[in-house]
Amino acid sequence: MTSYWRRLRDIVAERGPLCVGIDPHPSLLAAWGLSADAAGAEACARALVEALGDKVAAFKPQSAFFEAYGSAGIAALERVLADISDTGALSILDVKRGDIGSTMDAYAEAYLCDGAPLAADAITLSPYLGFGSLAPAFDRAHRYGRGVYVLARTSNPEGSAVQLALAEEGSVVQTIIDAATEVNRESRQKAIGLVVGGTHASLGCDLSDFNGSILVPGIGFQGGRMEDLPALFGDAVDQVIAVVGRGVIQAGPDREALRAKVDQLLA
Amino acid sequence: MTSYWRRLRDIVAERGPLCVGIDPHPSLLAAWGLSADAAGAEACARALVEALGDKVAAFKPQSAFFEAYGSAGIAALERVLADISDTGALSILDVKRGDIGSTMDAYAEAYLCDGAPLAADAITLSPYLGFGSLAPAFDRAHRYGRGVYVLARTSNPEGSAVQLALAEEGSVVQTIIDAATEVNRESRQKAIGLVVGGTHASLGCDLSDFNGSILVPGIGFQGGRMEDLPALFGDAVDQVIAVVGRGVIQAGPDREALRAKVDQLLA
Repeated sequence: MTSYWRRLRDIVAERGPLCVGIDPHPSLLAAWGLSADAAGAEACARALVEALGDKVAAFKPQSAFFEAYGSAGIAALERVLADISDTGALSILDVKRGDIGSTMDAYAEAYLCDGAPLAADAITLSPYLGFGSLAPAFDRAHRYGRGVYVLARTSNPEGSAVQLALAEEGSVVQTIIDAATEVNRESRQKAIGLVVGGTHASLGCDLSDFNGSILVPGIGFQGGRMEDLPALFGDAVDQVIAVVGRGVIQAGPDREALRAKVDQLLA
Repeated sequence: MTSYWRRLRDIVAERGPLCVGIDPHPSLLAAWGLSADAAGAEACARALVEALGDKVAAFKPQSAFFEAYGSAGIAALERVLADISDTGALSILDVKRGDIGSTMDAYAEAYLCDGAPLAADAITLSPYLGFGSLAPAFDRAHRYGRGVYVLARTSNPEGSAVQLALAEEGSVVQTIIDAATEVNRESRQKAIGLVVGGTHASLGCDLSDFNGSILVPGIGFQGGRMEDLPALFGDAVDQVIAVVGRGVIQAGPDREALRAKVDQLLA
């Protein structure tokens, strides 16, 4: 079994550190001439994967935009995940799940196990119930060569009230960074990644010892630029996967325009 | 439009403050002689609703146990929610969602809007991205007479590292309690509830000013007892909805045994 970290490193070495967010928001569907329903979301998502699946390291489908259409939306998401798998790009399913005990087990079974209808290469997790409560997902990631990205520091203004609060061993976000580093060290798999919005320097946390993948949303649309990443992340830049969502979708639906946009981002 | 708070008060006055958790864990499905798949989860859930829908104030389906079966599981969950609606009991869908901006909007559309396939009377939310990031869900709850339960304090050992960390205005959990109280005061709808595990006295937070519904998991199975609630919650006991999950399901699948178990809990 090849670990998620190794699979990610290989594809990033080949294609560059770009992850295209699949966020079929109703306004973007309208701009593409598609209906705001499961069929429209599926058409948009699968067109993105078809156009870019040989060019980008990963796709990040946003589960909320499929859940909005109920079981029909989830059936569409299953097909999108299958398409991504066929391209050789990795799927990072943005679900931000977090629970305890047997419920966390069930989420891990849903998204990180071979044969599950919604299995992805990696998922996002939310640690309000404590980093340790996510252990069932870490276990599945290690067992099946998959990955997780735990929400650490986000750039929205409301995030500080929780993330920068002071726990016994430093801020909440630093506690999570340090715990993830330790799990990665012990497992020797580096399956635990982090979601960090904006720049870690300005966000009051220290990633210099962190040893896993760092998922950075907000490139392109929210003002961040790929070429700024080395300055922003310093030595950790080799661990960064930049997510561009709206910035890519807005170039569509024309296939060549989508490809040109990605070339521009990767230049 | 009748607010969620009013609808909840009316049904609790009639039936008592009991919410039955619908947690079709594989081991419980096996005990019921059901398969660990979408059909088994659906059969278990709908049997619970059929047996108890005239007796209990609310049901709390756990989304994870349906997500584990992909779109087939979500289609089953849609039918379970429809069944609950037919009984007159309220549905509190346990999804623990939390995101920002247009993604949080999409979650609110998915679960709190009239006509959505997965619309419930209330859902659970997770505030790692900040209490304020959940505002799109609050807006929909107010607009459509629905409710939300924000995770506040949980009794699992890993929860303290985040929930008891110190923010500028007190602990993270207290900041959330106070913010929810304020939203309820301003809206005059009391649509914002909280999830509080165990006893608030022992969990380091103060609920004495809180003005919404308090969802308390862990009664029956984890050692809590309905008759202890007044001592545990003091004046806030009238706001408490006790969730019993495994403790009820384990009495099944016999319909009369399920009803007797609920009678015993409500006695």
